[in-house]
Amino acid sequence: MDIKKMVLEKAKAAKKAARGLANVSSSVKNDALIAMAEKLMDATEALKAENAKDMEYGRGKGLSSALMDRLELTDKRIAGMASGLKEIAALPDPIGEVTRMSLRPSGLQIGKVRVPIGVIGIIYESRPNVTADAAALCLKSGNAIILRGGSEAINSNTAIAKILVEAAVAAGLPEGCIQLIDITDRQAVMDMLKLDEYIDMIVARGGHGLIKTVTENSTIPVAKHSAGLCHTYVDAGADLKMAEEICFNAKVQRPGVCNAMETLLVHKDEAEKFLPGMVRRLQEAGVEIRGCSAVRKIFPSVAEAVEEDWRTEYLDLILSIKVVGDIDEAIDHIMTFGSLHSDAIVTKDYDRSRKFLNEVDSAAVYVNASTRFTDGNEFGLGAELGISTQKLHSRGPMGLEDLTSQKYIIFGSGQIRG
Amino acid sequence: MDIKKMVLEKAKAAKKAARGLANVSSSVKNDALIAMAEKLMDATEALKAENAKDMEYGRGKGLSSALMDRLELTDKRIAGMASGLKEIAALPDPIGEVTRMSLRPSGLQIGKVRVPIGVIGIIYESRPNVTADAAALCLKSGNAIILRGGSEAINSNTAIAKILVEAAVAAGLPEGCIQLIDITDRQAVMDMLKLDEYIDMIVARGGHGLIKTVTENSTIPVAKHSAGLCHTYVDAGADLKMAEEICFNAKVQRPGVCNAMETLLVHKDEAEKFLPGMVRRLQEAGVEIRGCSAVRKIFPSVAEAVEEDWRTEYLDLILSIKVVGDIDEAIDHIMTFGSLHSDAIVTKDYDRSRKFLNEVDSAAVYVNASTRFTDGNEFGLGAELGISTQKLHSRGPMGLEDLTSQKYIIFGSGQIRG
Repeated sequence: MDIKKMVLEKAKAAKKAARGLANVSSSVKNDALIAMAEKLMDATEALKAENAKDMEYGRGKGLSSALMDRLELTDKRIAGMASGLKEIAALPDPIGEVTRMSLRPSGLQIGKVRVPIGVIGIIYESRPNVTADAAALCLKSGNAIILRGGSEAINSNTAIAKILVEAAVAAGLPEGCIQLIDITDRQAVMDMLKLDEYIDMIVARGGHGLIKTVTENSTIPVAKHSAGLCHTYVDAGADLKMAEEICFNAKVQRPGVCNAMETLLVHKDEAEKFLPGMVRRLQEAGVEIRGCSAVRKIFPSVAEAVEEDWRTEYLDLILSIKVVGDIDEAIDHIMTFGSLHSDAIVTKDYDRSRKFLNEVDSAAVYVNASTRFTDGNEFGLGAELGISTQKLHSRGPMGLEDLTSQKYIIFGSGQIRG
Repeated sequence: MDIKKMVLEKAKAAKKAARGLANVSSSVKNDALIAMAEKLMDATEALKAENAKDMEYGRGKGLSSALMDRLELTDKRIAGMASGLKEIAALPDPIGEVTRMSLRPSGLQIGKVRVPIGVIGIIYESRPNVTADAAALCLKSGNAIILRGGSEAINSNTAIAKILVEAAVAAGLPEGCIQLIDITDRQAVMDMLKLDEYIDMIVARGGHGLIKTVTENSTIPVAKHSAGLCHTYVDAGADLKMAEEICFNAKVQRPGVCNAMETLLVHKDEAEKFLPGMVRRLQEAGVEIRGCSAVRKIFPSVAEAVEEDWRTEYLDLILSIKVVGDIDEAIDHIMTFGSLHSDAIVTKDYDRSRKFLNEVDSAAVYVNASTRFTDGNEFGLGAELGISTQKLHSRGPMGLEDLTSQKYIIFGSGQIRG
C-alpha cells in the first residue's frame, strides 16, 4: 500500500470537487445537509454496530473512561449529529456576500466578496460527531473537506463518512467533496501536511502533542485550536456576589472544556472578604484548590501553587488561585501564563474595565461575565468548527464566515494604468 | 557568535515592545513616523555612503544590472522613502476599530475590535526602501517588527534601521519595536522561522526560492507574496479597441512587476480580427510573442508556446498567447496554470462577465480593466506591505488593516452559562 499516493489521490479529488462546489447554490447545499442528516438517522443501528468495534478496541487498549465516553455513539448522540446538520443547513450561507464596494478615483468599482477557501483538511481526535459537524460546516461554506480522525474512532468515522458522501453526491454535490483518510498510519498525516498544492488550510483540533506535530510539519497554513488557560480577575471593589457566581460557573459548570477557568486572580483588598465563601463553595463542589502564599495564609490547608500550576490547563476540578496587588499584576500574570483564549475581569470600575479590555490580548476578553460563553452559538455564529487560539485569519470561535476567503472583484470600463 | 541566541534575544525584545506598542496613541505613532522620515532625509549623505559599500560588493559579485538598479539609493529614492513614511503617518489608524457589536439573547453585548497582530517578521530581498516601508506599516498598525533583508543590502539596511530606531524611540515608541537581523548567515533565517513563541507572523517577499524555504521551515504563520502569473481573456464580441489598450497596458507599461500580464487568451471568433494589430503593436514595443498553434497559423514566424510557457511568470517583455474555444476553456486555463493573483476578462456580455467573476478564484478578478491596478494605493488601502497570494487572513494588497487581528470583547452584567 503506497500511503503517499493514496493521500495524494484523495487531495486531488478534493481539489477537483472544490472548484464545482464553489458555485453550488445555497438551496442545493442545504438540501444535501438535510439529506445527510436523514441518512445518518436511518443508519443508527449500523453506526452503533461500527462504533461497537471501536469501543471494543478502546477497551482492549485500556482507554480512560473519559475517552471511552467521548468515543461512544448512542441513539441520542446520533440524533444530535443529525440535528446539528439540520441547524447548519438553516444558517445563512456566507458565500457571495460583498463585504465592501467603493468607487475609486480611477473610475474602477472595487469590492470584496466572500468565496470558499477551497480544500480544508481537518485533523482531530476522538469524538466521531466531529466527522459530521466538520463536513457540514465545510460543505455549507463551499469547501471540500479531507477528514483525518483519530485511529481509535476509525470504524465509526468511516461509517459516518460513507453515509455523508453517498447522501451528498445523491443530492447533487460534486463527487469527491468529502474525503476521509481511512489509513490509521501516522505517515498519512505527515504526507497530508505537505500537500500545499491541493489543500488550502489545515484545522488542527486536539491536545498539545497533535497541535505541535501539525505546526512543525505542515507546509499548509494551520488553524490552531489548542489550549484554553482562562483566568478570572476579581477587581478591588467588585460586586463579590456577582464575582462568586461568575467564578463558580466558569470553574464548575463544565470543567473539561477549553473556556473553563483554570486560574482565579483576586485583588489583595478583596481576598479576605471574597475567598472564604468562594473557596468553601468550590471545595463543596469537589474542586481542589492550589493557592499562592497569600491564599495559604487564609487557608493553610490548601496546597501550594507552583509556577507549573500557573501554566497548566487542568481541564478538571482543580483551580489555582493567586492574590495580586493591582490590575497591572493581574494583566501581567495573564499575558505571561495565559493561552490568550478567554479571560474575564469582574469590576465596578469604568477605567479598569477599559484597561483590561485594551491590555489583555486574548481571543475573547470579558467584563462581568463567565468565560464559559466563548462558543459559536453564544457569539451568534451558529455552529463552530473549533476555537482558534491564533491571531491570523480568525480568532475565537470559527463559524461559517471563518471558513471563507475574500477576493477582490473589479468592475471597469476600459481603465488602463497611467 | 551564537546566532540562535542573538536572534532569540531580538525576538524577545520585539515581543516585549509589542505589548507597549499596542496601546500607544495614533498621534504618538504618527509623530514618530514623521520624525523617522525627517531623520532619513537628514542622513542622505551617510545613507548613500553605506549604500556605496553594498553597490561595490554587488559589482564585485557580478549582480545583474536590474538587481544593481534595485539596490541603489539615490537622493530621489531616499526622499521617496521619507515621503512614503509621511504618507503612512497620514493614513487612518486601524487599531481600535470595532468592526461589529451586537446584543445577544444572553444579554451580553459582544463585539469585535481590531488589535495589532503582535510581532511581525519580514524576510525580503534587494530593495533597501522596503526596510523603511515595512517598518512604518508595522509600527502604524501597532506591531513590533523584525526585519531580515538580503545580504547584498546589509550596509544600507543596517544604516536605515539604525536611523529609524533612534527616531522612533526618541519620539516615544517602546525600545525594541524595530529589530534588524544584521547577521547575513542564512542560519539566522532558519532560527527566526522557529520562534513561534515570540513572532506572530512572517511576511515573505521575494522569489520562488525564498518563499519555498520560508514555507517549508516556518512554524510561524506565513503571509506569502509570491508569483503573479496574470491573464487577460478577450471574449467573443469584446470591444477590440478596448481589449487592445488593456492588453498593451497590462503587458508593456511595467513588465517586471507581479500584476503584469503574462498570458493572453483570445476567443477563437476574435483571433483573426484582434491578433494582427495587437501582436504588431506588442512587437513594436519589443515584446517577444510565443503562441499556440492557432496563433502560429496567423503568425507563422512566432515561436511556439510550450506547456512551460503557460507556467512561466516572465516578468519581462515576453508574452504567451493562446486561442481558446470558449470562456470555459479560458477559465480552465487560468485555474490550471495561473498563480491566482490578478486575471481579467474583456467582454460586452453580462452573463459571461458574471461567470468569469464567479469562477476565476484569483485574489483580484477584473472585468474590462488592466490587471496593473492590483496595488494598495489603487485599491484604496494606502501603502501596501506586498500582495498576498494566499487565501487565509488576507488576499491581494496587504494594507494596514491586513496587519491587524480581531479579538472579541464582551460586556456583561453578571451573566453565567446555564
